[in-house]
Amino acid sequence: MKFMKIPAATITRLSIYSRALEAMVDEGVTVVSSKHLADVCSVNPAQIRKDLAYFGQFGVRGVGYFVKELLFDIKKILGLNKQWNLAIVGMGNLGCALLAHQNFAKQGYRFACAFDADLMKVGRKLATGLLIHPVDELVRVCRETNAEIGVICTPPDKAQEIANRFLEVPVKAILNFAPVQIQVPDGCKVENVDFTVKLDNLAYHLTAG
Amino acid sequence: MKFMKIPAATITRLSIYSRALEAMVDEGVTVVSSKHLADVCSVNPAQIRKDLAYFGQFGVRGVGYFVKELLFDIKKILGLNKQWNLAIVGMGNLGCALLAHQNFAKQGYRFACAFDADLMKVGRKLATGLLIHPVDELVRVCRETNAEIGVICTPPDKAQEIANRFLEVPVKAILNFAPVQIQVPDGCKVENVDFTVKLDNLAYHLTAG
Repeated sequence: MKFMKIPAATITRLSIYSRALEAMVDEGVTVVSSKHLADVCSVNPAQIRKDLAYFGQFGVRGVGYFVKELLFDIKKILGLNKQWNLAIVGMGNLGCALLAHQNFAKQGYRFACAFDADLMKVGRKLATGLLIHPVDELVRVCRETNAEIGVICTPPDKAQEIANRFLEVPVKAILNFAPVQIQVPDGCKVENVDFTVKLDNLAYHLTAG
Repeated sequence: MKFMKIPAATITRLSIYSRALEAMVDEGVTVVSSKHLADVCSVNPAQIRKDLAYFGQFGVRGVGYFVKELLFDIKKILGLNKQWNLAIVGMGNLGCALLAHQNFAKQGYRFACAFDADLMKVGRKLATGLLIHPVDELVRVCRETNAEIGVICTPPDKAQEIANRFLEVPVKAILNFAPVQIQVPDGCKVENVDFTVKLDNLAYHLTAG
């Protein structure tokens, strides 16, 4: 597979297609038309074909896509045919909620290590069996546990400092829940999670509906 | 303004444009080219023009967009020129984290009432001053507090029951954090929050290098 510059939106949609295909596998669906897959994912069929065309030839004309096969291929494209190790920093309400959330393990993401700046929390064992390490040990522990993706759940004023420590590991991918922009050099990628973007969709529905 | 059928992805992008424009207002930027706005939002300039064209004529050819004006117009389109009242159910780690998160208030979303099924939590006052009500009182309290959007942070096996109560109010927009599909009739809109979609983008970045 060649890696050309793929639009970020295409990658996000592939992720959404894979969720829909997983649900179909669970329901025992074996073949899906691009129209049906498009409906489920709220896109148009041409968009699905265009997104997939970046990566090769998929589906059978007049038949559609074989669900398991397409799911396998998309997971391979996204790099989800392996388990990814996460390092999480900030064991407040949000950090604890993420650790307990079923979606991560289901999608192949494993919390490999956890950190907090609060020495009262350090040394505590979480329900998952993970030990909370002090932030000072982040670089060493991330290396030892092969952490590949950093998850920041700290207050906003600590987020950049934690990102800097991740860069030292080096961890080259960061999921940031802190409501602040993090600066990283080229080669490192940050995704910011903002719950309110989805709320805007709902506000629009209520306004225009 | 006429309300035709607008693609969901356009609404999501408008929301992202508004976040970028807000940051520009904070930085004192007064005019932005569609190319620069597009770069910041990781889309192409034609996409911005196409998204805005659904709603009218924006920007000045050869100049760009006036930041404050475009922000005002987008907020009006999305229905964000008013405050929205949220009802939140499930005061576990995630519910408490959401209540404390700065983004909601910043974007005009106000938690109007909170609920939990656990009678040990009911009657407790949260840091924000909100009282935790029993789930049995959801319909009455939501009506009294003019709750417009429901936020579900319960375990997955309780989510549908809570959605049904919201429908009784009626609350016609639901933000669902439970990892389960909720069934609602036409006229009600559900947005599911799945943190792992953003992780897939990072996994792809690490895989494709």
